[in-house]
Amino acid sequence: MKNLLITALLFISASLWAQSVTSPSGRIQVDFHLSDEGNPSYSVLFDNKEVIKPSPMGFRLKQGIDLTYGFKIIETKTRSVSETWEPVWGEVKEITDNHNELRIHLQQYASDSKMDIVFRVFDDGVGFRYEFEPNQKLAYFQVTDEATSFCLTGDHKAFWIPGNDDSNEYYYSTTKISGIDTRLCDGKGIGTHKIIDKHCIQSPVMLKTDDNIYINIFEAALSDYPAMLLDVNVNNYTLKAHLAGSATDVKAFMQTPCKTPWRTILISDNAADILASKTILNLNEPCKIENTDFIKPQKMVGVWWEMHVPNKSSWNYADKFNIKLADTDWTTLTPNGRHGANTANVKRYIDFAAENGIDGVLVEGWNVGWEDWAGNWKEEVFDFVTPYPDFNVEELSSYAKSKGVNLIMHHETSASATNYERRLDSAIGFMKKHGYNSVKTGYVGWIIPRGETHDGQWMVQHYERVIKKMAENGIMIDEHESVRPTGQHRTYPNLMACEAARGNEYNAWSIGNPPEHETILPFTRLMGGPMDYTPGIFKIKMANYQAGNTCQVHSTIAKQLALYVTMYSPLQMAADLPENYNLYKDAFQFIKDVAVDWDTTKIIEAEPGDYITIARKAKGTENWFIGAITDENKRTVEFYLDFLDPDKTYLATIYADGKDADWITNPESYSISTKKVTSGSKLKIKLAAGGGCAVSIYPIK
Amino acid sequence: MKNLLITALLFISASLWAQSVTSPSGRIQVDFHLSDEGNPSYSVLFDNKEVIKPSPMGFRLKQGIDLTYGFKIIETKTRSVSETWEPVWGEVKEITDNHNELRIHLQQYASDSKMDIVFRVFDDGVGFRYEFEPNQKLAYFQVTDEATSFCLTGDHKAFWIPGNDDSNEYYYSTTKISGIDTRLCDGKGIGTHKIIDKHCIQSPVMLKTDDNIYINIFEAALSDYPAMLLDVNVNNYTLKAHLAGSATDVKAFMQTPCKTPWRTILISDNAADILASKTILNLNEPCKIENTDFIKPQKMVGVWWEMHVPNKSSWNYADKFNIKLADTDWTTLTPNGRHGANTANVKRYIDFAAENGIDGVLVEGWNVGWEDWAGNWKEEVFDFVTPYPDFNVEELSSYAKSKGVNLIMHHETSASATNYERRLDSAIGFMKKHGYNSVKTGYVGWIIPRGETHDGQWMVQHYERVIKKMAENGIMIDEHESVRPTGQHRTYPNLMACEAARGNEYNAWSIGNPPEHETILPFTRLMGGPMDYTPGIFKIKMANYQAGNTCQVHSTIAKQLALYVTMYSPLQMAADLPENYNLYKDAFQFIKDVAVDWDTTKIIEAEPGDYITIARKAKGTENWFIGAITDENKRTVEFYLDFLDPDKTYLATIYADGKDADWITNPESYSISTKKVTSGSKLKIKLAAGGGCAVSIYPIK
Repeated sequence: MKNLLITALLFISASLWAQSVTSPSGRIQVDFHLSDEGNPSYSVLFDNKEVIKPSPMGFRLKQGIDLTYGFKIIETKTRSVSETWEPVWGEVKEITDNHNELRIHLQQYASDSKMDIVFRVFDDGVGFRYEFEPNQKLAYFQVTDEATSFCLTGDHKAFWIPGNDDSNEYYYSTTKISGIDTRLCDGKGIGTHKIIDKHCIQSPVMLKTDDNIYINIFEAALSDYPAMLLDVNVNNYTLKAHLAGSATDVKAFMQTPCKTPWRTILISDNAADILASKTILNLNEPCKIENTDFIKPQKMVGVWWEMHVPNKSSWNYADKFNIKLADTDWTTLTPNGRHGANTANVKRYIDFAAENGIDGVLVEGWNVGWEDWAGNWKEEVFDFVTPYPDFNVEELSSYAKSKGVNLIMHHETSASATNYERRLDSAIGFMKKHGYNSVKTGYVGWIIPRGETHDGQWMVQHYERVIKKMAENGIMIDEHESVRPTGQHRTYPNLMACEAARGNEYNAWSIGNPPEHETILPFTRLMGGPMDYTPGIFKIKMANYQAGNTCQVHSTIAKQLALYVTMYSPLQMAADLPENYNLYKDAFQFIKDVAVDWDTTKIIEAEPGDYITIARKAKGTENWFIGAITDENKRTVEFYLDFLDPDKTYLATIYADGKDADWITNPESYSISTKKVTSGSKLKIKLAAGGGCAVSIYPIK
Repeated sequence: MKNLLITALLFISASLWAQSVTSPSGRIQVDFHLSDEGNPSYSVLFDNKEVIKPSPMGFRLKQGIDLTYGFKIIETKTRSVSETWEPVWGEVKEITDNHNELRIHLQQYASDSKMDIVFRVFDDGVGFRYEFEPNQKLAYFQVTDEATSFCLTGDHKAFWIPGNDDSNEYYYSTTKISGIDTRLCDGKGIGTHKIIDKHCIQSPVMLKTDDNIYINIFEAALSDYPAMLLDVNVNNYTLKAHLAGSATDVKAFMQTPCKTPWRTILISDNAADILASKTILNLNEPCKIENTDFIKPQKMVGVWWEMHVPNKSSWNYADKFNIKLADTDWTTLTPNGRHGANTANVKRYIDFAAENGIDGVLVEGWNVGWEDWAGNWKEEVFDFVTPYPDFNVEELSSYAKSKGVNLIMHHETSASATNYERRLDSAIGFMKKHGYNSVKTGYVGWIIPRGETHDGQWMVQHYERVIKKMAENGIMIDEHESVRPTGQHRTYPNLMACEAARGNEYNAWSIGNPPEHETILPFTRLMGGPMDYTPGIFKIKMANYQAGNTCQVHSTIAKQLALYVTMYSPLQMAADLPENYNLYKDAFQFIKDVAVDWDTTKIIEAEPGDYITIARKAKGTENWFIGAITDENKRTVEFYLDFLDPDKTYLATIYADGKDADWITNPESYSISTKKVTSGSKLKIKLAAGGGCAVSIYPIK
C-alpha cells in the first residue's frame, strides 16, 4: 500500500463522478461511478465494448442503514501489482499476479459510515470487494441484503444450476438468461433439494454472449460471509447478489475491520482463457500454513463405490433403523453381512493400492452410527472415534503402514456441525493416535445448528474452523457437501479438494450426469478449486442396468481416464472396485501413471457444454498427460504437441475410445496404442459420443 | 413395573371412559378421561373438590399427526411406590417418595401411534408425563405444540412473571388470572427482554384460590425437551403448555423411546406444604454420578459485587470496544485501572475467605474478552483459557491452595453456546491443570446457535451436556442465565445452583427487587432447585443512592442474613465486599456460622408475597438456623422451638432488625442478642418493614 498513485477524477457530467482502472494489457476496463445521489456503481468494458453495464453496489443493513446511496468520495488510490508466487500444489508451478488496483474510500453523509470499494483488474477479469475499517459509527453491522449486481448487456447463453444454499448437486441447465426457471430442475437424489426462487441460481454462472464473449461470474476468498447466489432478472438480464440463508433474517454478522469476498467477473473471447485463469487464486490470501510438508497430492482407492452400486455393500453394520448413539452397544447388533468397512475387505483395498502404487485408501462406514444416520435432522449421530466391531483399527493401521499405504479418515457429520465441533478434538486425537493424516468430511442433510444452511455465514465459518484445525494438526482435508470453494486452497493448501457439486456418484443411482456435465464443471464449480469428482469407473453399466433406465456412467472408459487430466485435483480417486480394474489392467495403467500435481498446464481447446482438451506436465518431470472429452456428440480432436521439449523424443500411449465405442451402446470399448512423438507431432484422435481420450507422453531416455 | 395391578375401568357414560388414581392419603385424586372421540384429558380433586377441571392432553406434530384425539385405550396399569432415598445434599437428609401411579397405554386409530400417559399422585400433588416406546409408526416425531392444559376452577390469585424463553429475570406480578397482561412488565436491565404474548407467562406459576387452596403448576425432570411456559386464557382461566421457542417451527425433535418432562401440580391448603414438597425431586431420576465425593456444598466470596456497585471495578481490563478475540494481544492494551480480577485484589479475597472460614473465591473477569463481550450477538468472545495480563493464575492457584481456599472458575459464554462447546475440552483442561473444582457459567445475551432460545430444547440439551461433562471431570457447576431448574440436581448433584431468576444483583443497578421478591421466589423459581441469589449485602444503599432513586437493596441487613436460611442453596455467596463485612463483623458472624447442607427443614410459616419463616438443622450437627423474612410490611413472628431436642439446652443468637430499622429509612440497623432456649421456648421477634431475622441455635455442651 506504499506505492500509491492518486489518479485524476473524471467528471463525466455534473451529476456523476467516475474513475477508471484498466488491466495491464488494457483490454479490460472498469469504470466506477458515483451518482449525484451518491449511489456507487461500476461497469466493465472488454476490448472497449461494454460487458457489464453500470451496476449497483452496496448493502442493506438490519439497523436501518442503507449502504447503497448517499456516499461521497473521500479519496481514491490506485496501485499496480506484478508478482509471482508458487502454490504448494496446483495446475502450474508458478502463478503470476499482474493487476491494477483502484480503491475508493467512501463515506456516507447521513450515517458517517465509511466503506471502501476495491477493484483489481487483471487481463482476464475483474475482482472487487468491500472493505470496512473500524469506525465508531459502524463497529458492528448486520447485513440483510447485498445490492451488488451484474447488469449484463444481453440475453446471453447461461450454464447454471438452481440457487439452493443447501446443495450444489444439480446437473447444469443451458438456457438463455430469459429462459432461466429453476422450478424445472430435477432434485431427485438430492437430500436437501429446495427451490429458493424460480429465478435464483447458484454462482459461479458461466455465460456466453451472442458475439462469443465468455463471462464467468463468481466470487473469491469467501470467508466469514455467506456464499453468493444470484437473483436473475430475466427481463433486463441483471444478476443480483443473493446471500445464502441463515437461521435469522440477518445474512451476515460483521465486525470491523472486515471485508467481503471478492466478486469476480472473468472475461475472454477464448473459453480456454477462462479455464486457465488464475485470477480467483490471485484474489485469495497467501498461504497461512507455516510448514506445508505434510501436504501431499495423492491418489486413492476406497471402500466407497461398493456402497453406491446396487445391492453390494452398506455403510451400516446392522439393519436397525431407530438407534441412539449414546444408548447403543454395537457389539450386540446383528451384522447384516454387507458391511463394506470390514477388516478383510479393507485389507483387500490396501493390497490393491500397494500393488498399484496408489497412495491412500479411504474407508467409509468404519465408525458406528450409520444404521440411523440420515433424514431425521438428528444431532447426535456419529462420535468419530468408535469403530464398528468388524473394523479393527489397530490391525488395519499397522497393516496399511507395512504396505506403505495411507488410510484416509472419514468424518460424515450428517450435517450436524455442532456435534462435529464438540467432538472434533477427540476425533483428531483418534486420527493422530492411529496415524491418519488426511480426512474426508461429509455434510449430508439439513444443517444443525437448525435453520443455518450449508452455504450460509455460520457454516462458512465452520468449514474454515475445521480446515484450520486440521492444518494445525498436520491433516489434509477433502470436504463433501460443503459450500463450493472459492480459491482458499491458496491460503489453506491442506484443503485438497471439495465435492460441492454433482459428482460421478450420481451415475450410480440416479438419472445421472449427462455426458456434457464434465465439460461444464471446469467452467463453473472448478473455478473455485479442485473437485473430488471420483472418476475412473470402468464398469460403466450398473448391475441393475436395463435398457431404458439410466443407471450407468454417462461416459466411455476412455473418457473416465481423460477426466484425471480435465478435472484437475491434487486428490484423485480411482473410484471403481479393484475387481473391475483387474478386468482392464491395460486401461488402469493410465490411472497408475497419471500425476496429481503439475508444473505446466495447457488448455488446448475448450467450449462449455461441448468439449475440453487439456495437456499437463507432471511436477518435476518431463512427463505429459493429456485428456480430451466430449459431450454426447462424437468428435475428432486434432492438435500439435508443440508444448513438448523440442530437443526430446517421447513415447505417447494413447487410450482412445474403440472404433465402435459409444457411451450408451458400447461404453467399455477402448483401444490403446503407442507412438513416438516430438514437439512437431500432431495428434488426431476420434472421441466417441460421450467419449474421451487419455494420453501419457514420456520422454524416451 | 412388576407389581402391576389392573384396576377396573369406570364407564361414566357411554361416551366417556374414565379411570381414577388417588394419593396414598386419599386427599388428591386424578381422573383420566377418554372422550368418545378419543380425546385424552384429566382432572384433579383435592379433598373431593375439583382443582383442575377436565383438561386437554396431547401434542400436535409437524408431520400432520395430531396426537390430541382419536385414541383408544390398550391397557392401563397401576402401581404403588413407597421408598426413601438420600440426596447427596439438600434441605433434608432423607426423602420419602410415596405415590400411586396410573399408566394408560393409548393407541391412535388413524396413525397407529402409541402413547403412554403416566400419572403419579402424591399427597401434596400430581405429576404426569407422556412416554413413547419405539414403534415403526412413530420412531421420530417433531412436536410443534403441546396441548397439555390446566383448566382452573376460578379466577385465582397468581404470582407470575412474563413468558420469555430467553430470560427469567423479572420481578413478580401478583394479579388475578383475569388481570394477567405481560405487556406491563418491566424489562429494564434485562438484556434479552421480550414479550412473547400478552397472555404468556413463565412456569412455575403460584396460585391461590379464593378458598385458600395453594396450587403450583410447573414441571419436573426437564431433559431433551423445551421448557414449558404457559398461555393463559384470561376468560376461562385455562393455562396451556407453551413450549419454549427454537430456530425453526419445530419445538421438540423427538426420537423414541422418549418421554416428556413431568407436568406438576402441587396442591395444599397450607402454603408451607408447597415449600416443603419433595414431589418435583421425587419425579426426577436418581443420581447418575457414580462417585459424588467431589461434590461439597460451600460458601464463597467473590470478585463480583464490586463490578455491580457503581464506579468501582470492571470485568474488562482495558476500555476498548471493538475487539476480535483471535487478533488481539491483550498485553498491549492500556489497562483501565479498574480491573477487579487482578492478582493483588484476588489475594485480598483469598485472605478474607481464609480468615473467615469461607470455602471458595469466585473470580469474574479473570479471562480475556470482556472489553467487547455483549450486545452484538457475536460468536467468538471468550476462549476460557487466557488470563488477563494482571491475573497470575499460577500464583493465585498456589496462594489459594496454601490458604485452604478454592478458587471458583468463571465461564461467561455470552450465550454463545457453540463457542463454549467447541472450547469446552480445553477449558476443562485449564481448570484441571490449575486445580479448579467448581465453575460458574453464564449465558448473557441472545443465544448462538442463533434463533435458539435459552429455554428451548437445544439449550436444554446443552446445559445437560455441560453438567454431565463437568460431572465426568469432577467439577461442580453453578449456572447463570440458564433455563430454570426442574429438580435434576437429584440426578446430577454437581449442579449446585442456578440463577435463572432475578437475583440480588438487580438491586445494585436497576429498579431492583421489591421487598416481597424473596417471599415469592421459594414458591416459584426455587421449586425446581437452589438459586444462587447472592444474599448478604450489608452496604444496603449504593454509592450513587439518592432519596428517590432505588439503587439500594430492598431489605434490611437482618433480612439479608435471614435469606441464607429462607433461600435454600448448597452454594451460598457472601456477596458483599470484604471491607463492608469488616464494618459489621458481629453481623457477619451469622454468615460465617450458617450451614449450607441440612439434615432437617421445618417450614414454620409461609405465605407467598408476604412472609416466610424456616428453621433448618445443619447436616451432621445439632445446630439450628432460622430465617424469617417479611415483605414491605413489618411483622411480628412468634413460634415455638419444638423442633429442638427436648433433652438439650441451646444458646440462641438472634440477629434482629433494630428497633428503628426500616428497609428505606434505616436498613442497616440491627441488634444482636443471645438467650438460652429449649424445645419448650418460644421466640417472638419483630421484623421491620422489608426486614427479617436470623437466628443461630447451638446446643450448650
